[in-house]
Amino acid sequence: MTGFFAGRTLDGLGRDLRSGAATAAGLLARALESVDPSLNAFVIVDAEGAAAAARTADEELAAGRDRGPLHGVPVAIKDIIDVAGLPTGMGSDHFAGHIPERDAACVESLRAAGAVIVGKTTTHEFAYGASGDTAVNGPSRNPHDPSRISGGSSGGSAVAVAAGMVPLAIGTDTGGSVRIPAAFCGIAGFKPAYGAVPTEGVFPLSVSFDHVGVLAATPADCWTAYQVLKRPSPGDAEPAPVPGDIRVAWVESGPVERDVAETVRRLVPDALPVRLDLRELRRIFAAIQDSEAYEVHVERVADAPELYQPVTLDRLRRAGETPGWRYVRASRERARFVEEAAALLRRHDVLALPTVPITAPEIGRLECGLGPVQPALLSLTCPWNVLGLPALSVPAGTVGGLPVGLQLVTAAGREELLFALAAGTAA
Amino acid sequence: MTGFFAGRTLDGLGRDLRSGAATAAGLLARALESVDPSLNAFVIVDAEGAAAAARTADEELAAGRDRGPLHGVPVAIKDIIDVAGLPTGMGSDHFAGHIPERDAACVESLRAAGAVIVGKTTTHEFAYGASGDTAVNGPSRNPHDPSRISGGSSGGSAVAVAAGMVPLAIGTDTGGSVRIPAAFCGIAGFKPAYGAVPTEGVFPLSVSFDHVGVLAATPADCWTAYQVLKRPSPGDAEPAPVPGDIRVAWVESGPVERDVAETVRRLVPDALPVRLDLRELRRIFAAIQDSEAYEVHVERVADAPELYQPVTLDRLRRAGETPGWRYVRASRERARFVEEAAALLRRHDVLALPTVPITAPEIGRLECGLGPVQPALLSLTCPWNVLGLPALSVPAGTVGGLPVGLQLVTAAGREELLFALAAGTAA
Repeated sequence: MTGFFAGRTLDGLGRDLRSGAATAAGLLARALESVDPSLNAFVIVDAEGAAAAARTADEELAAGRDRGPLHGVPVAIKDIIDVAGLPTGMGSDHFAGHIPERDAACVESLRAAGAVIVGKTTTHEFAYGASGDTAVNGPSRNPHDPSRISGGSSGGSAVAVAAGMVPLAIGTDTGGSVRIPAAFCGIAGFKPAYGAVPTEGVFPLSVSFDHVGVLAATPADCWTAYQVLKRPSPGDAEPAPVPGDIRVAWVESGPVERDVAETVRRLVPDALPVRLDLRELRRIFAAIQDSEAYEVHVERVADAPELYQPVTLDRLRRAGETPGWRYVRASRERARFVEEAAALLRRHDVLALPTVPITAPEIGRLECGLGPVQPALLSLTCPWNVLGLPALSVPAGTVGGLPVGLQLVTAAGREELLFALAAGTAA
Repeated sequence: MTGFFAGRTLDGLGRDLRSGAATAAGLLARALESVDPSLNAFVIVDAEGAAAAARTADEELAAGRDRGPLHGVPVAIKDIIDVAGLPTGMGSDHFAGHIPERDAACVESLRAAGAVIVGKTTTHEFAYGASGDTAVNGPSRNPHDPSRISGGSSGGSAVAVAAGMVPLAIGTDTGGSVRIPAAFCGIAGFKPAYGAVPTEGVFPLSVSFDHVGVLAATPADCWTAYQVLKRPSPGDAEPAPVPGDIRVAWVESGPVERDVAETVRRLVPDALPVRLDLRELRRIFAAIQDSEAYEVHVERVADAPELYQPVTLDRLRRAGETPGWRYVRASRERARFVEEAAALLRRHDVLALPTVPITAPEIGRLECGLGPVQPALLSLTCPWNVLGLPALSVPAGTVGGLPVGLQLVTAAGREELLFALAAGTAA
């Protein structure tokens, strides 16, 4: 927790870069010094490439070319996202030595905004797990207690930010893979609306649910990064105004550890309880993700099963057994829920609930107070992937010294509401 | 083959109705007299309801209210399409006594056009089979040889037209269910582009592939009926002009009985051979139809399997085993083929091939010269359901006294080409 960027915001860094109090090269040096290998946040650090980018950023700023709030800022990229010339390992032996020639679309956007790509962060193998403890390079570790999981699958990205190694990291979120590690590590994590950030150059997990997201110390920094990453859309011209009084509803979400629920609920005391069948949304999530994930991997499972971590192989094989009719049924029910959620979001501006119903378990634990760990981790986040709604995890304090997250959800196009609300609900 | 409407066209009937040489009530009487129960075309004849409709049609014409070319014309409706107040039996014991309150959208259109609904025609159980020999009311029989199948699943509709009981019938086509019985019975059958005719009120088989289609003695009569049934679309204002010289390509289609191939090919001697991987399209068809069909039936299979015909139950249970990843893979490959076919249809105006690679087998035959009957029946028609392209089966002469069909396919929006070409290629 002692990295240079702990307690620093993009806003402050930007001021320092422009006042001459800092340089991109200097910030990069602080980032490299801050990397703590024992936390296993990074798979690879690209000191050379980053130095070149920092030099360019400094030269441009000196020459009066200012690319905006990410100019000169060190950023870490989850290792299922392509960065040209660096290996994309996917946390798996399957992609050992794989070096893409092109940047992913989101990396292109970051570079165009002047960001300095520091390296690639540990991912749960193929992003197929929410614990962050299964990868060829070992588990990423929670900075608040390295014997505990970081959460995943964007575990390395969350750890890199939470431990102050970088002020910003990019992750992906198919069932909670940005928000879960953000909550466990005590930072902010934002999963945009489905399709709002392009996924070209990101290895697929479940194409109906895959999102690129951002992790930073504060919601405000997530918002800044999101502005850089998001696709231009026709609605951009006229953002909906943020109402003075944001109507917040509390989603009765089923099993949540009592201390977690109370700690999170305290941040939105006036929220009105509402119901949405999250259990059914979880079933829909599973049927669709199972079929789509196995479709991506079927040839690898057949040809080289030994290259998977055993738990991933087992999960894939079970996923491959989901019958097609369940996929079809889930797709139909999903359409119905999309309408139901839209109706709910006409009556309420923002839905609130915990990000994860438990605190980070110890690495290797398969059971928690709510049953098996893996489904518990996803239980409150995956419904919003099914619905494709923007969802933000906000640091909400700690339980027994471990961070918990408040999750805020709204309609696509109303993202600003989440950040306005988060700004007024600091833990 | 001796029914009143044999050899009569909508055009001629319309002239007679308007000159006073015929009345709607008179045509209805001829239709009722022409019904030959031994062919099992009709599940139910609604003499009373039809008489009322015919009376209204006559009164309107007498009063100068002319609803167009279907005004006063007797039409038969496949028994998976809802007609208000008549049972929709689906060819199954599952729907015994089921009487819908509303007309299907296509029936609404027919009534608004002044058509007289004569009754409901025999369907293969739940439209789930191309032979037309599996239904609670027994097989519909081929008028050219009643020991042979009519083809299906719209078997009764094809038989009713081919035997001259009605001049027009409505069917559905998920993998060939309009075109196959049209070809076997020696009439024309048209499957429009996907979505061109609404399917509301039609029992689903596989929603990605379900189409409402028309059967009549001639392509021209199919065209007339299609104009009544099709959804208004933005493109209607400016139909693409029919070129003077229609570029026809012959799709090399794999196994076809030699006499069938030669007879059909003779009608389009100048067509250039082209390739399209119909075998792969069939695989895509099977994976998607299996999953979607079982999803429709899963509760019925669990709760009352004994109400299915055994062959249907067996087919459903095998369909239910298709894994979800195959559905996902097939959906992705389908998108690729849609583009490939679009490219082919920029180079050629119309694709031609036989409708069915064999002539109608005897009822009960499971094997034909090309292997198992069921997949052979669908082999040349289902690819166009996968691609959603308009496809017309044109009578193409006979082989051994049994009719064969020429199938013509084009791009959505260019349907008129098929009918222009068919008008110049009579067998």
